[in-house]
Amino acid sequence: MDGSHWVGIKAIAQEMGRRGHRVTVVIPEVSIRMGPGKHYDTLTFPVPYDRAHIDYVMSSHMDVMKKSAQSFTEKVTTRFSQIKRITGFIHITAESLLFNDSVISHLAQQNFDAVLTDPMVPTGTLIARKLGLPTINLLRGIPCSMDMKTAGCPSPPSYVPRFLTKNTDKMNFKERAINTLVALLEPLLCRLMYWHFDNLAYQFLREEVGVAEMLSDSAIWLLRLDFTLEFPRPLMPNMVLVGGINCHVRNPLPGDLESWLLEGEHGFVVFTLGTMVSDLPEETTSIFLEAFRQIPQKVVWRYTGPVPDNVPENVKFMKWAPQNDLLAHSGVRAFITHAGSHGLFEGLCHAVPMVMVPLGGDQPDNAQRLASRGAGLVLDIFDITTESLLEGLNEVINNTRYKDNVQRLSDLHKDRLVDPLELSVYWTEYVMRNKGAKHLKAAVHDLNWIQYYCLDVIALLATVVLIFVILTVKCFRLIFWKLTRKRKQE
Amino acid sequence: MDGSHWVGIKAIAQEMGRRGHRVTVVIPEVSIRMGPGKHYDTLTFPVPYDRAHIDYVMSSHMDVMKKSAQSFTEKVTTRFSQIKRITGFIHITAESLLFNDSVISHLAQQNFDAVLTDPMVPTGTLIARKLGLPTINLLRGIPCSMDMKTAGCPSPPSYVPRFLTKNTDKMNFKERAINTLVALLEPLLCRLMYWHFDNLAYQFLREEVGVAEMLSDSAIWLLRLDFTLEFPRPLMPNMVLVGGINCHVRNPLPGDLESWLLEGEHGFVVFTLGTMVSDLPEETTSIFLEAFRQIPQKVVWRYTGPVPDNVPENVKFMKWAPQNDLLAHSGVRAFITHAGSHGLFEGLCHAVPMVMVPLGGDQPDNAQRLASRGAGLVLDIFDITTESLLEGLNEVINNTRYKDNVQRLSDLHKDRLVDPLELSVYWTEYVMRNKGAKHLKAAVHDLNWIQYYCLDVIALLATVVLIFVILTVKCFRLIFWKLTRKRKQE
Repeated sequence: MDGSHWVGIKAIAQEMGRRGHRVTVVIPEVSIRMGPGKHYDTLTFPVPYDRAHIDYVMSSHMDVMKKSAQSFTEKVTTRFSQIKRITGFIHITAESLLFNDSVISHLAQQNFDAVLTDPMVPTGTLIARKLGLPTINLLRGIPCSMDMKTAGCPSPPSYVPRFLTKNTDKMNFKERAINTLVALLEPLLCRLMYWHFDNLAYQFLREEVGVAEMLSDSAIWLLRLDFTLEFPRPLMPNMVLVGGINCHVRNPLPGDLESWLLEGEHGFVVFTLGTMVSDLPEETTSIFLEAFRQIPQKVVWRYTGPVPDNVPENVKFMKWAPQNDLLAHSGVRAFITHAGSHGLFEGLCHAVPMVMVPLGGDQPDNAQRLASRGAGLVLDIFDITTESLLEGLNEVINNTRYKDNVQRLSDLHKDRLVDPLELSVYWTEYVMRNKGAKHLKAAVHDLNWIQYYCLDVIALLATVVLIFVILTVKCFRLIFWKLTRKRKQE
Repeated sequence: MDGSHWVGIKAIAQEMGRRGHRVTVVIPEVSIRMGPGKHYDTLTFPVPYDRAHIDYVMSSHMDVMKKSAQSFTEKVTTRFSQIKRITGFIHITAESLLFNDSVISHLAQQNFDAVLTDPMVPTGTLIARKLGLPTINLLRGIPCSMDMKTAGCPSPPSYVPRFLTKNTDKMNFKERAINTLVALLEPLLCRLMYWHFDNLAYQFLREEVGVAEMLSDSAIWLLRLDFTLEFPRPLMPNMVLVGGINCHVRNPLPGDLESWLLEGEHGFVVFTLGTMVSDLPEETTSIFLEAFRQIPQKVVWRYTGPVPDNVPENVKFMKWAPQNDLLAHSGVRAFITHAGSHGLFEGLCHAVPMVMVPLGGDQPDNAQRLASRGAGLVLDIFDITTESLLEGLNEVINNTRYKDNVQRLSDLHKDRLVDPLELSVYWTEYVMRNKGAKHLKAAVHDLNWIQYYCLDVIALLATVVLIFVILTVKCFRLIFWKLTRKRKQE
């Protein structure tokens, strides 16, 4: 998994290598951000695209944001073309790896103990199956709840909010109805998301096995969740919460950056929109710049596009920003973020109040969760104005409520016995040591849904009760009939 | 909670005190085994019974075991009288504390941060409510699943075996039907178990609140379970598994005992039947003695009754045995146990193969779980003979399969990042620090069962589908009718 999904995997790979394990990371020749590290080996495989194609795929995010694409049809077309570009990119990458016989047979010869993967893109899952290795999954979640379903984890739609609904765990009837409807449609969504991988599985493994069945074999689920943000829900014994895994890898800021940031006495604002979105349409950029011109704080903006002319003095564009190190700095006053899960956890970790401009995916839900706890504000990037942004920034920077709330959440989040990275490494080693974690897997996988809900038993019990009632009624009728006949005879 | 339930509470109380917390243990003047400790204070309250009464209550266990009580009616009468004696004892103890105004008002003045209790007997729960304090529950489980129900934890009867059924997580249709039936009857069992406490709650708190409602307010559930023994099942975020909490508190054996045990070269067998049963009917005792006479191992037998005449040389009776220390000794070959949860965890911890003679409560289920994993054998204490016991002992001592299996389970059980006692203390301190753990409590408690299962939503959806179908059919009929009429007119 590339992009932000790589962050957590890399942290574990590094730490495993540092502890003396042999770690091999399989990465495409050209990738968004995957690359070599100090403590692991890399094995690259060729892909039939170049950097320009990746940029083209990434740019689809900007198309979606363009204000000109306003009509509904245009919006839908743009979204659809974005999804098509991204899934196409994912499928080509997967196929390039799976059908590269020399790489696969090289992997098969290495006698690995386990596979660590993000099953949102199940390439690693397929390879683990081929190699007969136990799998450790590290993920934020799969939108169609395939993760929960294959782990056999109950997710009652009455209080477990579904993806994209923006519901909380407390729903009124309408919200609960929508939530249930989404839950009922999830299998369809899963099918849409993974039909191509189901086909790939058959071609690659030569056995009739779908992605869902393979996932249900997973040894351990490392979920990048934390109940300071997430709503409490049931979990299974082989699920481990490691939300915040990316927070503690810290470096000091470069000297010149730090001295620039500390020039004023008002602190600074960090502005990033994640790996996927590194520049913005011109009109949106100028809205942000105008707002920044009117605040006393410095602003560090991760931005790879062409630098505009009239940049205010308090704004610094950076092609790449050490986001976590910036957020960990005592001078930070606010964090403008797209509310990706990694960014949110970093903001939460270092107790930085946030202005959130979700772009898509899980981001609107993430933002809603943090905002509902009073630790930040949500703005609509498609409707943003200089005034609304300025108002939002002033609110989170100057109204202590936000800082207090995020500090409280942050303290709760960090009040734990074991660091999430330590926990992830422990469970990865656990799976290697014990060749899986079979005794933690619930016996739900042998049950079909009729058996799972005991519908057959309920039918039997209902029949027994019915027969009993019928017999009782018949008996009473017979007695009544006999009595009345007797009386008549008298 | 007295008896074996005190073991875990005491371990936490000691450790909390050792870490500098002020810990007050409230105990009855006369008790089975509760008493002062090095690191906590005790507050005693008077009870209207004496040691002789406790012995009388305890002796009911022996009545149940007496072979003479063979007829079904007698068996039922004995069991019933046993349950009556024990519940009477529990209720008197609870009332003596709850209605002792001076003790309660003294407690109210202490500004405690939290209450640690075993809610199987919910006296502590009532006091926590009165004092407005968050509660940490330490328990093995409540037979009617009140713990799981009040924590909002899903327990599908299709793979979560119910108490007393001896089912595993893999059930055939008949077993699943029985399991479901037991699950359906659980609310009734809960009502039977706690109606007296529901009444006490009203008298004590002067508010309309039942035990179930109070328990659903619990901050943290420390469950003395471990999935090396227990079948995997869903858990809630505020549940923490601390099975094996009692294993690591170890002391060396007294010198004379150790040298006696090591006299032979065949090692020794540990025989205890828990706090509740310290002696046996004479005929049962002689069955055991005859079997022990025929094995080369030494036997340490915890036994408080009158010592019989013809005790073989290799058998030592002890009024109190340091069970955990004995099991931790390298010379131990087998453990004859009633399969109480503490004993099982100690045996598991130190990898000792077991001969289990369950007496009641959760013991038959416990024994079944360990036996199904090949780590021990189950014998029926009511049907035991010298031959069957001898055969069982020889099997677990000489067939390496048992030792191998229990060693494997033990390794798995001990493969954990944090010691269960450390974990228990951490979560207790967590509740004190954060004044509860509200963010870990699922939003199930505001839902009634119709809402929980979304039956109202399903009814609505079904109605919509039905209306749609009816309308479609009507439309088609209309079209068909018009068409046929047209044709007729032609």
